[in-house]
Formats: sequence, C-alpha cells, structure tokens
Amino acid sequence: MVMPPNSRTESVTDPALKNPSRRRLLVGSAGALASVSLLGVVPLARADEAKTLPDYAKWKDQTALIVHSANTMETERGAIGSGVVTPSAHLYVRNNLPPPEEEIVTNADAWEVSFAGVENPKSLTLAELKRLGVTSVASVLQCSGNGRAFFTHGPGGTQWSVGAAGCVVWTGVPLKDVLETLGGANADAKYITGTGGEELPEGLDPKTLVVERSVPVAALDQAILAWQLNDEPLPVSHGGPLRLVIPGYYGVNNVKYVKSIAFTKEQTDAKIQASGYRIRDVGEKGAPDQPSMWEMSVKSWITAPLEKARQGRNMIYGVAFGGVHDVAKVEVSADGGESWKEARFLGPDLGPYAWRPFVLALDMSAGEHRIVSRATDSNGNTQPPERTKNERGYGNTSWKDHGVTVNVA
Amino acid sequence: MVMPPNSRTESVTDPALKNPSRRRLLVGSAGALASVSLLGVVPLARADEAKTLPDYAKWKDQTALIVHSANTMETERGAIGSGVVTPSAHLYVRNNLPPPEEEIVTNADAWEVSFAGVENPKSLTLAELKRLGVTSVASVLQCSGNGRAFFTHGPGGTQWSVGAAGCVVWTGVPLKDVLETLGGANADAKYITGTGGEELPEGLDPKTLVVERSVPVAALDQAILAWQLNDEPLPVSHGGPLRLVIPGYYGVNNVKYVKSIAFTKEQTDAKIQASGYRIRDVGEKGAPDQPSMWEMSVKSWITAPLEKARQGRNMIYGVAFGGVHDVAKVEVSADGGESWKEARFLGPDLGPYAWRPFVLALDMSAGEHRIVSRATDSNGNTQPPERTKNERGYGNTSWKDHGVTVNVA
Repeated sequence: MVMPPNSRTESVTDPALKNPSRRRLLVGSAGALASVSLLGVVPLARADEAKTLPDYAKWKDQTALIVHSANTMETERGAIGSGVVTPSAHLYVRNNLPPPEEEIVTNADAWEVSFAGVENPKSLTLAELKRLGVTSVASVLQCSGNGRAFFTHGPGGTQWSVGAAGCVVWTGVPLKDVLETLGGANADAKYITGTGGEELPEGLDPKTLVVERSVPVAALDQAILAWQLNDEPLPVSHGGPLRLVIPGYYGVNNVKYVKSIAFTKEQTDAKIQASGYRIRDVGEKGAPDQPSMWEMSVKSWITAPLEKARQGRNMIYGVAFGGVHDVAKVEVSADGGESWKEARFLGPDLGPYAWRPFVLALDMSAGEHRIVSRATDSNGNTQPPERTKNERGYGNTSWKDHGVTVNVA
Repeated sequence: MVMPPNSRTESVTDPALKNPSRRRLLVGSAGALASVSLLGVVPLARADEAKTLPDYAKWKDQTALIVHSANTMETERGAIGSGVVTPSAHLYVRNNLPPPEEEIVTNADAWEVSFAGVENPKSLTLAELKRLGVTSVASVLQCSGNGRAFFTHGPGGTQWSVGAAGCVVWTGVPLKDVLETLGGANADAKYITGTGGEELPEGLDPKTLVVERSVPVAALDQAILAWQLNDEPLPVSHGGPLRLVIPGYYGVNNVKYVKSIAFTKEQTDAKIQASGYRIRDVGEKGAPDQPSMWEMSVKSWITAPLEKARQGRNMIYGVAFGGVHDVAKVEVSADGGESWKEARFLGPDLGPYAWRPFVLALDMSAGEHRIVSRATDSNGNTQPPERTKNERGYGNTSWKDHGVTVNVA
C-alpha cells in the first residue's frame, strides 16, 4: 500500500495517550502493546491497538518504541535516556512512503546518484562517493510533527509526543566535496533538490507522491551524503544505502535512498514541497508562499523523572538542542515555570547540530510538580512558552507543552 | 575455576594469527571459529581451537570478537570501524577473575561501596551515589597487554593484537563529589585504592587473588564511579553494577564491581599491584619499585584497509589517542615509515581521554604497501618506532608493530 505524504489515513491516537504519565508496557511474548495507567489518575480513553514493528524495522527495540503505524514509530520518552547519541535501535522512524526492499542495501556500493544543475552533470556510485571525502557529524533528526500530540485543535497525522527525534552520528561525504569534483553548481542555483528512490505506484501522478525536497543552497555548508548511521551501514529503515542529510533541518529534508541531487533555480513542484510541510493557519491549504519546514528551532524536554519522584534530592534529566545554532543553556523549573534554575550539560559536546543531555539536582517536597525545561541557543533564541497554532501541528517548541507532571509521595 | 592474575594458563596463540592478513570467520551455526588465510601467503601454523563466548558475555557480537578464553575476548581489527565510540557488543573483555553472578546487577541500586581513609568513613549505596552528582566521560579502555602479540620474546599471557582497547562513554559520579560529602581524604593519602567484588576461593591467600589496585591520588581529577557504559546500565561483563573508572589509565586500574574505595598512604600489597602489572626486564620478577601500569601513552593503529587495496585513491582509516593527554595529530605512511602525510580526524572530539578516528586519502600503486600510523599527543610525545622489550609484554606503542601490510593488485 502506498500512502500519500501527510496521509490522514494514519492512525490518529488520543493525545492523552502520549501524556508522560502513561507508559506502554510490552505485554505477552507476541509483543502486543497495551497502554496502562501506572498512576490511575487519568482513565485511559481506550486500550491501544496491538501494533508490532513492521518487517523492515524488526531489528529495532520494540520496548523503546511506540508503533503508531508501519511507517511511523516513536521513541518512548522514558527510553531517551541521558546519552549523547540515540542508539539506532531506539531511533524513531517516519516514512512518507513504504521503504524499498531490503535488497537495495545488499550491494550498497553500486548505488547510483545522478547530479544535475552542475558544470559537469553525471552519475556517481556510492563506491566513488566514498573516495571523494568523508566526515562524521552528530545531528538531531526530528520530524516536523514532533510535539503534534500537544496541539488541541486536532491536527491530523501521527500524534507524536516528544519521541520523533533523536541525536545520531552520520558518516558520509560532504556534498561540497562532491560538488567540487562536478565543477561547481550552476550560477543561478538557489536550491538543493534531492529525490528519493522509493518505487511509485503506476497510474497516479508521481508529483503527488514522490519524496522530493528542496532546501536553500546555503545548506551546502553542512549537507552530506551519508552511508553510515551511528558507525554502521545505513539501514533501509533510515534511508540506506545513501541519504541526503542536512544537519539542523527537519527530518523530511533528509531524503532517503537518494537517487538524484539537482542544484535548481526553483523549488521542486512535488506536492511534498509545494503544499506539504508548510506552516499555515488552521483551515488553510498548503501553498509555496508559506514557510517550509526547513531549519529547526531551539527545543528541549524532560526525560526523567516522568511520573514519580522522591522527597528530597532528585536528579532531573532532559535533552536540549539548538537546531541550526548550538544550544547555549537550559533552565529547569519544578513549579511550571515560575522559578528557574540553570541545568548542567552532561557528557561530551558533539557539535552544533547535536543535542546535549542535561541534568539538574533538585530538592523536591511532597505533592505534584510540573517540571519544565527551557533552552536558549547561541543566537539568544529561547523556547517560547506557547505553541504556535498551525494547520498541520508542525514545529511545536513550546516549553509548557514539553514538561512532565511528577508526583512526590 | 579461579585463575590468578596474569595467569600463564591462558591459551597462548601464535602471534602470526593476529597478523592483519589473517581474518577469522564465523564457521557454522554453532559459532565455531576457525582462522583462515584469505591471501594464502603465509600458511597457518594450526587451526584455532573453536571458542565461543562465555555465558556472561553471550550478548556480545561474536563476529566482532576473537575469543581467547572465557575471560579474554578481543575486538577484531576489522570490526573497530571509524566510529568515535565502540559499541558495547564489540568491546573487548579482560577479567582477572571470573565475574560474579548476573544477579549482582538485578538490584543495582542496592549495591554498597565502603569508603575509608576519609574524614567520615561510611558506606553508600549506588542509589545514594546517583544523587551526589553525575558526569559522562568518553575514554579509551585498554588492557596493559594490548599489542603483546607483536613482542618476539614470547611473553606469556593473552596474545592481544590491537583489539584489547575501545573508546566508550562512562556515566557516573565524579569521585571528587563523593569525597566532598565524606569530608575529604586523610591528609597523608597518596593513593586511591579500589577493591573488586569478585568472590575469592577459600583456602588460598586472598592477597594473591584479590583485584585491588592503587593509583596516585592525582587521578582524583578524573576518577568516576560509573554505573553506565554507553548510556546503558553497566553489565556484569564490564564491572556492573559499579566500576571505578580512571580515564587515561590502563584497564586494570578500572576496578570492576567495586566494593570499597580507600584513600591510602601506601599502595596495596595485593599481588596484582605489588608484583603484577610492573614493567621490568625480561627474566625479572615483578616488584613494587618497578613502574606500575598506570597512565597510558599516545598510540594509534590502522583499521582499514587491512589486506587489499585498489590502484589509485584509497581511504586509509585508523584510531589514535593520547592516554592522559589528548591526541594532537596523527601521520600516516604507506611506505613503512619513510615518508609521512598528516591524516585528518574524523567526527566529533569526545574529549581528552577519547580516541579519535582518523582518515587519509591516499593514491596507491600496485604492489605491497606497509601502512603505519604515528600519533603525537598535546604534550609533544610521539609514538616510538620500536617497542620496549619487557618481561610481560606491556605497554606496546610501537608504530612499526601496529601497521598493516596491504596488497594493491
């Protein structure tokens, strides 16, 4: 089954189920999932449908993931941990189309990419790309709709809470290095347009389905063609054998199984670019003159504790990132934002596009506490308190939304 | 079976088997290992004994490991890759005694450590330690005998090639923070002495078996009590539930299942400290006045290619680290050290104790090439060309030894 981009046929689950006071437990050996209330404060609207990992993602750790559908899997907030890198088995999956067959990675080095809009257009195999240069970059991969579950106007699409994001290490050739061997881009190039290698069903207009995205040519500074994820060959489930990665940009711009790269004067007229992934008021249709989901903004959230804490000293953990600017500081409040304390970053700094785990030692008294975090990037941008309402529920960076309510008994 | 430290009863394999021109292949579903020659240039002395992972390490990736014995497993050179962090499933194992039962990590937070030689001696549980502070440090873990296989005087002990080393992220409380809550160390403290929680057999003098190591108190700057390895709870196979980690120091100083920490005026008289892990001339017995295997020195080795390369452009990969000083540069030679080119570090810098993968694009002609690497630390120390012969074959940092011979057809 081929689903169009942004399909509303995806399962829409009750946002309450994504509340951090709920936790999914693996029930039974068949791996059926059920949501259970550990606190019993808010009754569940309904039991979740049992969903297991699709075949192409069977290698993932189901206990760390919420399976929304065969094309959408989210990392549990409780599985994010305090590490600088998200293990691949925990990383969320969001496919706009069903992925190609596994066989496309069996002879990865033979994968071909065509380059256009350059002085010397040609195709290069992955084996050739590997000899042009190599870099490893840690960056946050995040779905445009991460945080959608917190919107109250009911935007369609996957009801992601915080887990449609992870920080991973990509290894590949800088697109700049490739461009150099191609003699440079055309003088009028304003966009880098990447096309995915998914098979498109016959009988439908390809432009309505193809995963083809354009990003400003300025992204050439950090764009890479990646063949490794966390130091292992890139699996099909994350775009293997080769993915266009634009560190600092939302996930959709990181075109999987990339088969062509063009330096273009205009953005592609593919639906996913022209009307999809556009910020607009509720009720409006998507259009090319609306802001596209390109650069990510500063954001953070709490990862522990999620439900209960102890009287006295607790260690509060979370993750923070700046999007295209590195994150400079993060503050934590245990009273819903009335008073703040600066948290400390934990572990090595993996660079401007990576997230940084943070920690704050906090003494807590009995009762209910709303723990929130607020990050500021190196350009002085701070997370806003409120989300910006928009038709599709994109780009939620509200610090109010991303906190957790914790009981100290 | 309990084996004394540095037991010579460990299997001693032919150093030629560790030559990078040999590769071990997993043969058969039972996971029996056999060494096979891929080039057929040097005949094998004998087929390796079939060895599988011991139960406590069954979770590891056997295809990435050479199993020397139930207590010694080495990462294949070809499995080191170009990543900044060694996956736990690929990390070498070296136990001086058989590890405790798995159950010691089931209630990890209840694990107790006693502290002595401080103003207020007491025991603390892991749960309490977790609230005293937390840090994450990337550091190279390396066995003192890593590189022993290259010695020609036949030192006993495990015949490690390059793979008794890995770079991992430790998370735990800085020992400094713990010391602060204990009122500080005694004024005459010169050493930090850690004791492992292994069960010792009755009827033998505990001092000859106990894993108890002393390091200079200056190591307090970087010492941590770690409960996580690569962001997951520390497994028994690597010292869980709690390990004393001294970044920059050889593996043996990182006491597993640590049950007591003492700030002492003298080094412990346990055999593993008094006479074990001492650098001395061939034929001499170990003694406390000889240098102890504490701080690591600058070192590097090639990780790819290992056997074959192509005519023309090749990407040469390796890893380099400085021990206690960060690594500043690494040079690569494809003619056995006659001419050198500076390589480029690859990926994020995880701090002074971490290793850095490096890469160099090199044009190669037909024939046999000896590829070697030579690292220099930030203090200006460079890897020596030759190994320093010593009784136990410790501390080999020779750049000549750590190269690979590659055929370009």
